[in-house]
Amino acid sequence: MSVAQHPPVQDMEIANWRDFGEAELGPILSGALGCFMENGYHGTTIRKIADSSGLSVPGVYHHFSSKHSILDELDRTAMHELWVRSQAALDDGPRDVLSRFDRLIECLVLFHAYRREVAFISFSEIRSLEGAARLEHLSARSRQQKLLTDLVLEGCDTGIFVNEFPREAARAITNICVGVSQWYRGTGELTPREIAKRYVSLCRKTVGAN
Amino acid sequence: MSVAQHPPVQDMEIANWRDFGEAELGPILSGALGCFMENGYHGTTIRKIADSSGLSVPGVYHHFSSKHSILDELDRTAMHELWVRSQAALDDGPRDVLSRFDRLIECLVLFHAYRREVAFISFSEIRSLEGAARLEHLSARSRQQKLLTDLVLEGCDTGIFVNEFPREAARAITNICVGVSQWYRGTGELTPREIAKRYVSLCRKTVGAN
Repeated sequence: MSVAQHPPVQDMEIANWRDFGEAELGPILSGALGCFMENGYHGTTIRKIADSSGLSVPGVYHHFSSKHSILDELDRTAMHELWVRSQAALDDGPRDVLSRFDRLIECLVLFHAYRREVAFISFSEIRSLEGAARLEHLSARSRQQKLLTDLVLEGCDTGIFVNEFPREAARAITNICVGVSQWYRGTGELTPREIAKRYVSLCRKTVGAN
Repeated sequence: MSVAQHPPVQDMEIANWRDFGEAELGPILSGALGCFMENGYHGTTIRKIADSSGLSVPGVYHHFSSKHSILDELDRTAMHELWVRSQAALDDGPRDVLSRFDRLIECLVLFHAYRREVAFISFSEIRSLEGAARLEHLSARSRQQKLLTDLVLEGCDTGIFVNEFPREAARAITNICVGVSQWYRGTGELTPREIAKRYVSLCRKTVGAN
């Protein structure tokens, strides 16, 4: 039974969607993530992943049938964690649309700060995913985007948000939050929670929150 | 005299910053761009670039000393074109801060729609640039970002924009506009000019334009 077929991440339990420890990727996915960050997916070999994981090449193949299945698993792990945290954030407090919007933005920013490496690879290597893995990834992205788009549409319908282009606004807000993974390095003066607070304010403006 | 040392792009003349024909990259840079999009920088060989360019391997080496110098040149070409167009946009019309802001947003959106491939590679392969090339790239990015940041700060100082976090807003707006290169495929119902018009409206909101 391979790790790829039965990813432990599907059983992920998040005690608090705001708390981030180290990502529990295990040695192979952690090693592969480092390799992909350094040399890209196509510039990485199973041999390099094995070296980075402290395993032998057959040791890696015991768990994953191919480099592609490692990328797929890394990607699904990231998308799943983001989904679980987003659901928890939406459910955790007042139900009015602005409160849910604020919590979803906070969750997106925290995730893209704390999980910036896997978020970057998940985004930049979409083109390297093939077949069913690619379709599943695009479907997971659509599902995730829909959480935000539906909130923005609901806000516009109820007059809480005033925005002529709600779908474009929802996509723009995703770009703003994903952008955190592209510049945050953990060395600036602001903590992820402080960044999230500022971004909630910015995204409220973008969406035309009253 | 190598192409890399004396890039013709430095003489680039833009008749109208809103008009985009095909990017004039020449066969090697065009071929390399296709390869980098398909297999990433590290997954591409000079042999593949030669095949894609319709040249021999020595033919490629006649113009570029290494794969790295091709990436460097591609990147500088993109950053230079964006810079030249941005300057033209800022100068092309009324001088008040909101008008300049609108034109810069329009320029950023048009560039990231029409030049989406080179923009994607320029962004996602920063990590593959080494030494002086990397520093020059980061410097070019800072210079480009400063155009927008200065406008946002000027707008806040003069009360045209109302925003508690102008620097974050300026970066967020960059992420929104760069994001176009990540989803625009030229097949949707909106033209780049229509998208730009909507994004000007969105970015005005983000920055708190009165």
